[in-house]
Amino acid sequence: MPKKTADNMDLPPSLTAPRYMDIPTFMRTHLITDPAEFDIAIIGVPYDGAVTNRPGARHGPRELRNASSLMRTIHHVTRVNPYEVCRIGDGGDVHFTRVYEIEPSHTEITSYFANFHEAGVVPLAAGGDHSITFPILRAIVKNGPVGLIHIDAHTDTWDEFMGSRYSHGSPFRRGVEENLLDPQRTIQIGIRGAQTSSEGWDYSRDIGMRVIFIEEFNQLGVEAAIAEARRIVGDGPTYLSFDIDSLDPAYAPGTGTPEVGGLTSIQAQELLRGLRGLNLIGADVVEVAPAYDQTGNTALVGATMMYEILCLLAESVG
Amino acid sequence: MPKKTADNMDLPPSLTAPRYMDIPTFMRTHLITDPAEFDIAIIGVPYDGAVTNRPGARHGPRELRNASSLMRTIHHVTRVNPYEVCRIGDGGDVHFTRVYEIEPSHTEITSYFANFHEAGVVPLAAGGDHSITFPILRAIVKNGPVGLIHIDAHTDTWDEFMGSRYSHGSPFRRGVEENLLDPQRTIQIGIRGAQTSSEGWDYSRDIGMRVIFIEEFNQLGVEAAIAEARRIVGDGPTYLSFDIDSLDPAYAPGTGTPEVGGLTSIQAQELLRGLRGLNLIGADVVEVAPAYDQTGNTALVGATMMYEILCLLAESVG
Amino acid sequence: MPKKTADNMDLPPSLTAPRYMDIPTFMRTHLITDPAEFDIAIIGVPYDGAVTNRPGARHGPRELRNASSLMRTIHHVTRVNPYEVCRIGDGGDVHFTRVYEIEPSHTEITSYFANFHEAGVVPLAAGGDHSITFPILRAIVKNGPVGLIHIDAHTDTWDEFMGSRYSHGSPFRRGVEENLLDPQRTIQIGIRGAQTSSEGWDYSRDIGMRVIFIEEFNQLGVEAAIAEARRIVGDGPTYLSFDIDSLDPAYAPGTGTPEVGGLTSIQAQELLRGLRGLNLIGADVVEVAPAYDQTGNTALVGATMMYEILCLLAESVG
Amino acid sequence: MPKKTADNMDLPPSLTAPRYMDIPTFMRTHLITDPAEFDIAIIGVPYDGAVTNRPGARHGPRELRNASSLMRTIHHVTRVNPYEVCRIGDGGDVHFTRVYEIEPSHTEITSYFANFHEAGVVPLAAGGDHSITFPILRAIVKNGPVGLIHIDAHTDTWDEFMGSRYSHGSPFRRGVEENLLDPQRTIQIGIRGAQTSSEGWDYSRDIGMRVIFIEEFNQLGVEAAIAEARRIVGDGPTYLSFDIDSLDPAYAPGTGTPEVGGLTSIQAQELLRGLRGLNLIGADVVEVAPAYDQTGNTALVGATMMYEILCLLAESVG
Amino acid sequence: MPKKTADNMDLPPSLTAPRYMDIPTFMRTHLITDPAEFDIAIIGVPYDGAVTNRPGARHGPRELRNASSLMRTIHHVTRVNPYEVCRIGDGGDVHFTRVYEIEPSHTEITSYFANFHEAGVVPLAAGGDHSITFPILRAIVKNGPVGLIHIDAHTDTWDEFMGSRYSHGSPFRRGVEENLLDPQRTIQIGIRGAQTSSEGWDYSRDIGMRVIFIEEFNQLGVEAAIAEARRIVGDGPTYLSFDIDSLDPAYAPGTGTPEVGGLTSIQAQELLRGLRGLNLIGADVVEVAPAYDQTGNTALVGATMMYEILCLLAESVG
Amino acid sequence: MPKKTADNMDLPPSLTAPRYMDIPTFMRTHLITDPAEFDIAIIGVPYDGAVTNRPGARHGPRELRNASSLMRTIHHVTRVNPYEVCRIGDGGDVHFTRVYEIEPSHTEITSYFANFHEAGVVPLAAGGDHSITFPILRAIVKNGPVGLIHIDAHTDTWDEFMGSRYSHGSPFRRGVEENLLDPQRTIQIGIRGAQTSSEGWDYSRDIGMRVIFIEEFNQLGVEAAIAEARRIVGDGPTYLSFDIDSLDPAYAPGTGTPEVGGLTSIQAQELLRGLRGLNLIGADVVEVAPAYDQTGNTALVGATMMYEILCLLAESVG
Repeated sequence: MPKKTADNMDLPPSLTAPRYMDIPTFMRTHLITDPAEFDIAIIGVPYDGAVTNRPGARHGPRELRNASSLMRTIHHVTRVNPYEVCRIGDGGDVHFTRVYEIEPSHTEITSYFANFHEAGVVPLAAGGDHSITFPILRAIVKNGPVGLIHIDAHTDTWDEFMGSRYSHGSPFRRGVEENLLDPQRTIQIGIRGAQTSSEGWDYSRDIGMRVIFIEEFNQLGVEAAIAEARRIVGDGPTYLSFDIDSLDPAYAPGTGTPEVGGLTSIQAQELLRGLRGLNLIGADVVEVAPAYDQTGNTALVGATMMYEILCLLAESVG
Repeated sequence: MPKKTADNMDLPPSLTAPRYMDIPTFMRTHLITDPAEFDIAIIGVPYDGAVTNRPGARHGPRELRNASSLMRTIHHVTRVNPYEVCRIGDGGDVHFTRVYEIEPSHTEITSYFANFHEAGVVPLAAGGDHSITFPILRAIVKNGPVGLIHIDAHTDTWDEFMGSRYSHGSPFRRGVEENLLDPQRTIQIGIRGAQTSSEGWDYSRDIGMRVIFIEEFNQLGVEAAIAEARRIVGDGPTYLSFDIDSLDPAYAPGTGTPEVGGLTSIQAQELLRGLRGLNLIGADVVEVAPAYDQTGNTALVGATMMYEILCLLAESVG
Repeated sequence: MPKKTADNMDLPPSLTAPRYMDIPTFMRTHLITDPAEFDIAIIGVPYDGAVTNRPGARHGPRELRNASSLMRTIHHVTRVNPYEVCRIGDGGDVHFTRVYEIEPSHTEITSYFANFHEAGVVPLAAGGDHSITFPILRAIVKNGPVGLIHIDAHTDTWDEFMGSRYSHGSPFRRGVEENLLDPQRTIQIGIRGAQTSSEGWDYSRDIGMRVIFIEEFNQLGVEAAIAEARRIVGDGPTYLSFDIDSLDPAYAPGTGTPEVGGLTSIQAQELLRGLRGLNLIGADVVEVAPAYDQTGNTALVGATMMYEILCLLAESVG
Repeated sequence: MPKKTADNMDLPPSLTAPRYMDIPTFMRTHLITDPAEFDIAIIGVPYDGAVTNRPGARHGPRELRNASSLMRTIHHVTRVNPYEVCRIGDGGDVHFTRVYEIEPSHTEITSYFANFHEAGVVPLAAGGDHSITFPILRAIVKNGPVGLIHIDAHTDTWDEFMGSRYSHGSPFRRGVEENLLDPQRTIQIGIRGAQTSSEGWDYSRDIGMRVIFIEEFNQLGVEAAIAEARRIVGDGPTYLSFDIDSLDPAYAPGTGTPEVGGLTSIQAQELLRGLRGLNLIGADVVEVAPAYDQTGNTALVGATMMYEILCLLAESVG
Repeated sequence: MPKKTADNMDLPPSLTAPRYMDIPTFMRTHLITDPAEFDIAIIGVPYDGAVTNRPGARHGPRELRNASSLMRTIHHVTRVNPYEVCRIGDGGDVHFTRVYEIEPSHTEITSYFANFHEAGVVPLAAGGDHSITFPILRAIVKNGPVGLIHIDAHTDTWDEFMGSRYSHGSPFRRGVEENLLDPQRTIQIGIRGAQTSSEGWDYSRDIGMRVIFIEEFNQLGVEAAIAEARRIVGDGPTYLSFDIDSLDPAYAPGTGTPEVGGLTSIQAQELLRGLRGLNLIGADVVEVAPAYDQTGNTALVGATMMYEILCLLAESVG
Repeated sequence: MPKKTADNMDLPPSLTAPRYMDIPTFMRTHLITDPAEFDIAIIGVPYDGAVTNRPGARHGPRELRNASSLMRTIHHVTRVNPYEVCRIGDGGDVHFTRVYEIEPSHTEITSYFANFHEAGVVPLAAGGDHSITFPILRAIVKNGPVGLIHIDAHTDTWDEFMGSRYSHGSPFRRGVEENLLDPQRTIQIGIRGAQTSSEGWDYSRDIGMRVIFIEEFNQLGVEAAIAEARRIVGDGPTYLSFDIDSLDPAYAPGTGTPEVGGLTSIQAQELLRGLRGLNLIGADVVEVAPAYDQTGNTALVGATMMYEILCLLAESVG
C-alpha cells in the first residue's frame, strides 16, 4: 500500500465557515465511513463508569466536538497545517452496549479502536474518564510495550478501588502489568494532591517511571521538562495521554477530580509543542466533564490541546 | 411519483443508543445528502442578525440538535411514531456567506429551503431569530397565500425598526405584504408585554388576523383556543411558527426578548397536539438563545416542541 | 399648586432606543434632581442588613434598574401608558452611612423618602430586604393608619429575631404597633411554608388581618382574591408591598428565603391588574437578590411587577 | 418495648438557629447512632450507577441535606409538627464499597436499610437514582407485597437495559417480580415523554397498575387524583416513591432525565398532602442531580417534598 | 483657553459610597452634559454587529459600568489619582439608529466621538466589538497617522469576511489604508491561535507592524515588551487598544472569540503601567461579552484595565 | 498533663470512603464533643455582617466543609500526614444569637474560641468575613502580642467605615491597638488594588508592619518572600490569616471584594509550605462567598489552603 497522503482529501468546507454553523464533528472534519481513507481518526469515548468522584465525562466527547469548531488549521507557532499533512476525520463514538460494567465496556473500546488500528489509522481519543486509556492501548500496542508521556494531576497507577482493578485510577498500572507500557520509557508530569496512601506514587517510582511532580516541573521550567520527556521516551513508539485535570482548576474546572495548583494552559501548550518529532502512535485527552464547566472553558482548552496533539500526530504520521 | 413511504428507510441506530453518544444531528436522524429520499427535513438556520435586543440565537440550531438527543420516537399521548410514518432527516444548516446583511442572508435562507421544497420535502426549521420565517415562506409558498398559526409573545407585525423592514419584529407583516400569508387565515396566540406604540397590535387587528393575547388564552383554556385556531386556518395549507418566547421565562429563559407571564410548557404541548390533521406545509421553532440558558431547559423545551411539531408534520405529510 | 400633569414632561429618548443602550435608570426615566417636577419617584433601597437567611438584596436596585430597560410604555391589557398620565422619574438610591446598624439605616430610609413625600411625590421603592417597608411607611403615613395589600410567602409579622425587633420578618407588626397600618384594612396573600412557631401567623390573624394562604388563593382563583383585597382595603389610602418570594422559586429563584409552592408570574400580574382604581399612596417590590439569579429572570419579573405597579400608581395619582 | 414517643427526644437546637449555620444533617436533626431511639430515619443513598442518561444523583443526598436546613417544623396547612409526633433523625449514608457494580451496591443498600427496619425505624430515603427503591423494598417488605404510590415522569417498569435488569428504569418491574409490590395496589402518577418502545407502559397496564399520565392528571385535577390513589392503595401497607423528574424541568432542572410538561411544585405538594392517614411503611425522594441545578431550586424542592412526606410518615408512624 | 485642571471639579460622592449603591456610571463619575467641562470622557459603544463568532459585546458597556463601581481612585503602585489630575466623566453611549448595518453604525460612532474630540476631550471607549476602533480613529485622528499599541489575541488585520471589509477582524488594516495608523509605529502584543490562512499575520508583518506573539512575549518578559512598545511608538501621538481576549480565558471567559494560552491579568496590568508618559490620544477596552461571563470576572478585569488606562490618559492629558 | 498524641485517635472511616458520601464535616473528621480529646479544631464562623461590598461569606463554612471532602491525608510534597501527628476534629460553628450587631457577634466568636483555647486546642477557623480574625485573636492571645503572617489583597488596617470600627477592613488595626498583634512581627503579602485614600496603607507602614505588595512579591519570587516572612515573625508565637481574595479572581471568584492581579494558587501553596516550623498558634481562611462561586473552585481552593495550613499547624502543635 502506498504511503498515505492528504492530496486526495478535500477539506470539509465547514472548516472555513462561521464556527457556529453545521453539525459539530471533531474539528469540523468529515465523519469517517471507511477508515482506509484516513490517516488519523479522532474518536469519542463517552464513558465515565470508572470514576472515583464526580461523574460526567460521558458528555466530554460531545462538548469537545462542539468547542472544537473554534479550532482552525494553521498553527501560529509551528505554521504546521495538519490537514495538509494528513487525512484527518471524525471516527464517531465507541458504541457501548453494556455501560454498567467496566470490563465489557473496556472490551468494546478495544474492539472499536482495533478496527481503526487495523486499517492503519492513528487514533486521537476524546474521553471519557481516564480508564479508557488502558483498553485503547490494548487495541494499538501489538509489538511489545511502548513509551508513555502522561500529563496529569494523578499517577493513575493505583491498584484496586471499590473492588475493581480497572477504575480511572489504575490504567497505567494495568498497562505495565500487561506489557503494553514500558515503565522505563514512561514519564508522568504534573502530579500533585494529597492522597490517603502513597501506594500509587510508590508504584510509579518503584517500577521505574519518571515522575515529575508539579513543584519539580515549575522549578525545571518547560524547556527542561521537555528535554527530560524526550530523554525518557527516546525514539521508540510512544503514546501520549493528556488528562485535563493536569491543568489548574482555574483553567479547567470541568473535570471530576480537580486538584488545585496545576499547570497553566500555556505551560501545557508549550510542553506539547516540545514533543514534535517523537514517534507517536496515538493519544488521548480525557476527563472533560461538561456539567462542571459553566463557562465552557474546559471544553475549549480540551479542544485546543487536541489541536496541539493533532499537529504532533500529523507530523509523526505524515 | 409514487407517494413517499417510510418503508425503505432504516432508522438510525442512534435513536436507541444512550442519548449522550454519537454526533448530535437533529433527533439523531440521518444527515440528508439527497433530499429526494426524505419527506421531512429538519433544517438549522443559525442566524440572529435581525434581533432587537439580546443576540445569540445563531447558536440555537446547535443546542437544539444537542438537546434533541433526548427526544424519542413514540408519542405518549397519540402513540404516533413519526419515523414510521415518514422519512425524516437532518437537512444541515443554511450556509450563510454574508452574515452582516439581513436581506442577502434572507435570500440565502430562501434558496436553501427552496432546494428542499423543490424535492417535495417539508421543512421543520430550527432558528435563529424570528426574521427567518419570512424567507422560509418565500421558499415554500408558491400558490397563493397560506394560513398561519403563530405562537409567540409578540405579534411580529411591526414595521421598520432601526432602518430595516426585515427585523425579527416584522416577518408576518412582510409575509402579508408579499401575499405569502392570508391574514384572514392567521391566528396569533400568547401575545403580551408592553410596547412603546400599539402599531404592531393594530396592524394585526386591522389586517384581519385573530390575535389571542395570553389573558384571553388563559380565560378560554387550551381546548377553546385550539378550536379557534382550527376555525381560523381551516383546511387550507398552513404554516406553523413557534417562538420559544411564547413560553414564560421560567420555562424558557434562553431567548432574546423574554416576556413575563407566558405559556407553560404543557399548555404549549396541548395546544400543538390539538392541531393534528391540519394541512401543514412547514413549521419552525425560533429564538432559542443558548447563552442565556444556563440549565439547558430552553433547548430541551425547544427540542420537545420540535418533536411535537414533527409528529404533526408526519401525519400531515404521511 | 395646580394639579400635576405630564404635559410638560418630555419622555427620555432612551425609552424608545434599543434596550441595551444607555445608563440604566429605572425604566430608563430621567434621574430626578428636583422632586417637585415629578409625580412618582422610583427609588432604590440597597439594603439587606436585616435578612434572616441569605443576604444579597442590597444588589437588588441595580439589577432591577438593569432589567427595567426591557420595560416599555403602553400596557397590553389596559392600554394605559403611565408616562402619559404622570411625570415619573428615578429617585436614585437612599444614601446609607451606617450600614451595620438596622435602626440608623431605617432612619436614613425614612428621611430619604420623607424628602420626596414632602414634595408630593408618590414612591415606588425597589428593595432591598423587606425590613425597608416599615421606615418607608414612617415617611409617608402621616394622617392615621393606612390599608395594606401585602403579597408575600411570609406574613412578616413576627416579633424579635436574634435580638432585633426590626428584621425583615417584622415590618408589618411594627407598622401596626406604630399605628401606621390598620390591620383591619390589611390583606396578606400568598403565605406559605413551614415555621418553627405559629407566632407570626397567629399575630396576623389575632390582630385582624386577612391572610390568604396560597392554598386558599388557588382555590379562590385570582378574581375572588382581587375582590377580597378590594373589600378589605376599600377606598382609603393603601400601601402595596410586593415581596418577590411570593412567586414560586421557579419564577423567582433570586431571593433570600425562597419558599416552594408559590404564585406564578401571571397570577401575580393579574392580581395586580385587579387593583386598578384603589387609593394607592406608595408601593414597593422587595427581596430581589441577584447573586442567586443566574438567568436574570428574577430581576426581569421584579421589573415587570414594578411596571404593573407603576401603572396602578399612575392611575391613582394622575 | 413501650410504644415510641417523642417525649424524651430533645429537638436539636439547630432547628431554630439561622439556617446557614452548623453541619447540614437532614432537616438539621440529630445523627442517629442507635436506631432504637428513633421512629423515622432519613437516610442518604449516594448512588447513581444505574442511570441511563446524565449521572450525578450520587451528590443528591449532600445537597438535599444542605437545602433541608431551610425546612422548619410546623406545617402551614395541616399544622402538624412531625418532630412532636415522632423521633426523627439522620441515618447517615449507605456505605458503598463496590460502586462499580449494580447488584452488589443494591445488596449494600438492602443491608443498610434492613438494619433500621429491624430496629422498627421507618425510612425516608434520599437518592440517588431510582434503582435504589428496589433494594429498599427488599429490606422493608417482609410480609407479602405492599402498595405503591409512585410519582414520576416514567413508569420505571422497563426490562433489561444495556445488559442489566437493574437500571433506574426497572425497579418497579423487579419489585412485582419478587412479590414485593402488589401491582393491583400500585398507582403511577405524572407519566409522560416519548419512548422508543411502549414496553414499560404496556407492562404497567397489563400487570394491573393504575397509570395516570400527566394529561389525565391535569384533566382530573389534584383532588380526583388523590381519591384515585387512595382507592388503589386502600388501607394496606404502602410505599411512597417520589421521583423529582415528575416535576416540570422549570421547577426541577437538576435531574438526569428531565421531561418537559410535568407537575408544578404546588400540584405535587397538594397531591402529597392528600395522602394523610395512609398506612405508609417508607418513602423516598430520588434523582436530584445537583450538577444540573444552578439555582439550587431542585434541591430546595426536593427537600420540601421530603418535609411533606416526613409529615405523612410521622402521622402514619406516630 | 486656559489649560484644563481638575480644581473646579467636585468628585461625585458615589466614589466613596458603598460600591453597590447608586446609578452605575463609568467609575461612578458624573454624566457629561457639556463636554467642554471635561478632559476625559469614558464612552460606551454598545455595538456587536461585526463579530465573526459569538455576539454579545453590545452588553459590554453596561456591565463594565456596573463592575467599574468597584474601581477606586488612588493607584496602589503609582499613587496616581487620575481624578486629581483631570476632569473625568461618563460620556454616555453612542446612540445607534441603524444597528443592522456596519457602515452606518460606524459613521454614528465617528460622529459621537467627534463631538467630544472637537471639545478637546480625550476618549476612553468601552466596547462593543473590536470593529469600533476604526470609526473612533476616524473621529480623533486628524493630523496624519498615529501610533498604536494593540493588545489582543488576534492581529485584526484581516481583509474581507463574509462580504464585509469592516468586521471586527479588520479595523487596523482599514486604519492603515485610511492613513489613520502608522504601521511602523504599531505594535501588536499577545497574538496567538490557529488560523485558516496566514493572511492577517502576513499583512501585519509585511506592512511593517511589530507583532509580539504570546510565546515571544513570555520569553521577553513584561519589561522587555514594554521597552519594545515604547521604542516602536516613540513620542508621537499614540492610540491604545485593549481587546479583552488578549487575556487567557481563565481570566476573561466572557468574550466572543476566546483563545487559550493568553496573558494573565497581572501581566496585562504591568504592561499597561509600563506605558506611563506616552503621548496617548485615546484608548479602548473591547470585546467584553457579559452573556459568557458567569462570574463577572471578565467585566471586573475589563473595568480594572480601564482604570489602569485612565491613569495613563490622565497623566498624558493632565 | 502529658503531651497529646494522636495514638488513641481513630481516623474517621469517611477519610477513605468515596468523597461524595457522608455528612460533610471539615476534612471528614469527627465532630468534637470534648475539646480535651483534640489538638486542633477546625471551626466554622458563618458571619458576614461586617463586609463593605458583597455579602455571602456566612455560607463559607458550609461550602468549605463540602469541598474539604476532596482533601486527603498525606501531603504530596512534605509527605506529612497531619492526622498521624495530631488529633484533629471539626469544632462546629460559632453559635450566633445577635447577628445584626457586629460587636456582640464578635463577643460570641471570642467566647466560642476561648472554650477551645482553654482546653489547649489550636484553632483553624473558616470564615466568614475578615472581621472575625480580631475576636479570634482576643480569644487566643493572652500573653502579649503575637506575630502575624497575613496573606490578602488588602491590608485590613483601615479605621472606621460607615460608623463602625470593626468592619472587615479593620481587624489588624484593632489587633495592634489592643496589643494582640506586634506590628514589628507582622507581614502582609499580596496587597493590591486602588483605594479612595491611602490611610490603611499608611497605617501599616507607619506602625511598622512589613507590607509586600503583589508587584514586589512577584519580583522577589516565592522563596524570597518566605525568607522575609520568616525573618519578620521569627520564632515567637505567630498567627496566620489567609484571605481568599489574596488569590486572583481567576482562581477564587467567590469572594466579596475581588481584586484583579493576585496570587496564583500554586504561589499561595508554595508560600504556605515555606512556613513549616514556625510557632503557629492559630490560623484562619476567610472571605469565601459561595454565592459568587459558580464552579466551586473558590471553595475547593479554600479547602486546599486549609489543608496546607492544617499540615503546618499539625507540625507546630504535634
